[in-house]
Amino acid sequence: MTHRVFNFNPGPSTLPLDVLQTVREELLDYRGTGMSVLEISHRSPEYDAINAEAMALLKELMGLGDEYKILFVGGGASTQFALIPMNFLRGGQVGAYVDTGTWSTKAMQEAQIQGNTVLAASSKEAGYTYVPKQEDLEIPDNSAYLHITTNNTIKGTQYHYVPEAGGVPLIADMSSDICSRRMDFSRFAMIYAGAQKNLGPSGVTVVVIRDDLLERCLDVLPTMLNYQTHAAKQSLYNTPPCFAVYIVKLVLERIKHGGGLEAVAKVNEKKKDTIYALIDQDPDYFRGTAREDSRSWMNVTLRLPSEDLEKKFIAEAKKRGLVGLKGHRSVGGIRISLYNAMTLEGAEKVAAFMQAFRKAN
Amino acid sequence: MTHRVFNFNPGPSTLPLDVLQTVREELLDYRGTGMSVLEISHRSPEYDAINAEAMALLKELMGLGDEYKILFVGGGASTQFALIPMNFLRGGQVGAYVDTGTWSTKAMQEAQIQGNTVLAASSKEAGYTYVPKQEDLEIPDNSAYLHITTNNTIKGTQYHYVPEAGGVPLIADMSSDICSRRMDFSRFAMIYAGAQKNLGPSGVTVVVIRDDLLERCLDVLPTMLNYQTHAAKQSLYNTPPCFAVYIVKLVLERIKHGGGLEAVAKVNEKKKDTIYALIDQDPDYFRGTAREDSRSWMNVTLRLPSEDLEKKFIAEAKKRGLVGLKGHRSVGGIRISLYNAMTLEGAEKVAAFMQAFRKAN
Repeated sequence: MTHRVFNFNPGPSTLPLDVLQTVREELLDYRGTGMSVLEISHRSPEYDAINAEAMALLKELMGLGDEYKILFVGGGASTQFALIPMNFLRGGQVGAYVDTGTWSTKAMQEAQIQGNTVLAASSKEAGYTYVPKQEDLEIPDNSAYLHITTNNTIKGTQYHYVPEAGGVPLIADMSSDICSRRMDFSRFAMIYAGAQKNLGPSGVTVVVIRDDLLERCLDVLPTMLNYQTHAAKQSLYNTPPCFAVYIVKLVLERIKHGGGLEAVAKVNEKKKDTIYALIDQDPDYFRGTAREDSRSWMNVTLRLPSEDLEKKFIAEAKKRGLVGLKGHRSVGGIRISLYNAMTLEGAEKVAAFMQAFRKAN
Repeated sequence: MTHRVFNFNPGPSTLPLDVLQTVREELLDYRGTGMSVLEISHRSPEYDAINAEAMALLKELMGLGDEYKILFVGGGASTQFALIPMNFLRGGQVGAYVDTGTWSTKAMQEAQIQGNTVLAASSKEAGYTYVPKQEDLEIPDNSAYLHITTNNTIKGTQYHYVPEAGGVPLIADMSSDICSRRMDFSRFAMIYAGAQKNLGPSGVTVVVIRDDLLERCLDVLPTMLNYQTHAAKQSLYNTPPCFAVYIVKLVLERIKHGGGLEAVAKVNEKKKDTIYALIDQDPDYFRGTAREDSRSWMNVTLRLPSEDLEKKFIAEAKKRGLVGLKGHRSVGGIRISLYNAMTLEGAEKVAAFMQAFRKAN
């Protein structure tokens, strides 16, 4: 019996066990080719099928039509922070950003290197403990786009509405909550996500982009930094991160066979309810850091009455096979990441541990 | 018994079987962590060790000192084509390029988008059938760098000397021959390579860069596109392509335990001699496309007397478990890629097949 823990790491993070088992089974010989997916040509019919199926599955699960293109690229979401202004921000325009913490701040800073930005809204003054509401957003008419970060892994907050941006293209970093719930994804002109939380391993970034935004890419850009390059060649302009795309395909197949995003959301809701119920029962002990209306389904962040207790909590949990519960180094505390591949059993194990720890401490 | 073929694909390409077996063994539980390398945090001690060991091994094998930094980044070598001028090409300077075929042409074109370039030498007029010699190189004093492509996968040519560039930093795309032989790597200010030929799977690009060049990076660059960002954080500024780096580490360990680059080169020399001997014996039938002094050890390219014979050759070879022998779509013919992980047995099988095919056709 293979030793496995419950892995609550914030990313890279746990993958479905059956996906890993498939990867292992196919590792030396992918479907009779006599080669590993690690070795097959990106110009082979086998990889073509993997690539096309992964794109089709993502569009199907997200309910998107042919006006959207899917790109599988390298460099992580952090590279997208730079490419968005590089591709879309023209002179005389501003990039509008909602600042909900570290990652949205970084996204905005990259745009400031290249052009002008404006804060459409920010929760900085409140320590990023909530997500601004629709009525708080101020989006200038000359905005090239409005950028949001739908889930904030460090502060444990998440959007529970899709902002209305008027005629301004809405761009979202969904690295930590893509495909975790049903929403009207067609409201977004562009969605991007590092795969390593909800979709697969690190090494591939998923970009979903609508044709009308794609057409706005600036003309004279380095080839590899222009979204049009990858869209025109179905992400096969150069050698893609084949193995990571293959695992994304396996994860998406599993989501589809499990009932799509509705089924995923149902489990994710139960998982987060299991933990937040304990926070609500005993708020002086389990001190949730996010405002209730902005609580993340993906990352539950909390503090205990003392740092010593937090250390003890993390250490004892680890002994019980519950790993990765330490809060981000910039904020401390406890973070329980509940991405798609974390099972309800895992969430219940943490909840049981929390109750036992509370009694004993 | 697992079905395995001899995989002569030009990249992604074959990996050592024992490396794949290790990957498979560790796939569900990496060294007792209860997690796959696909799932572990890039901030974990386990990944820190993988990352540091891969960097140390590469420097050791290449004989490089602490004045060199190793970066593991995404985006492929094609992204490096753009980043080199972005980081190093200042106003008043030129990027000097030796043009030896498709990949060096592409590298130069990316620099032309951003600044001025000059051809230090070119073999275009001869159909890129050879690599220019030292005495052919003209390197202007105001060159920001001299860029070469050490092995040319499409035309089957390779540098068999290290160009002397005076005080100008020498930058090499070694995607298709890195770590395939011993050379004085300290003559290069920067070396980069997509891993998917000699070092691992696709999805990670290795950049080897010397401090004096690193210091020349332009000031105001997007964070992720600046080499200094990755050098300062040991390639952990953002989430790296962890799994691909892990496989690179396994491949490098294997090279070290096998006797280093001298041992690798000895086998690679035998492999290419086995094939070129047949070309030299029967040059009217096996029509090598590269000039003898520029022949690649990595990609042997040849034509047969007719395209029909070539098609037949490729199809019959495939039936015998020798796959990936088709020439690049831009040139046709036959290409026998003999990267590090291709065994001598594989080269001998191809040679035996060539002889049998010759007799029968």
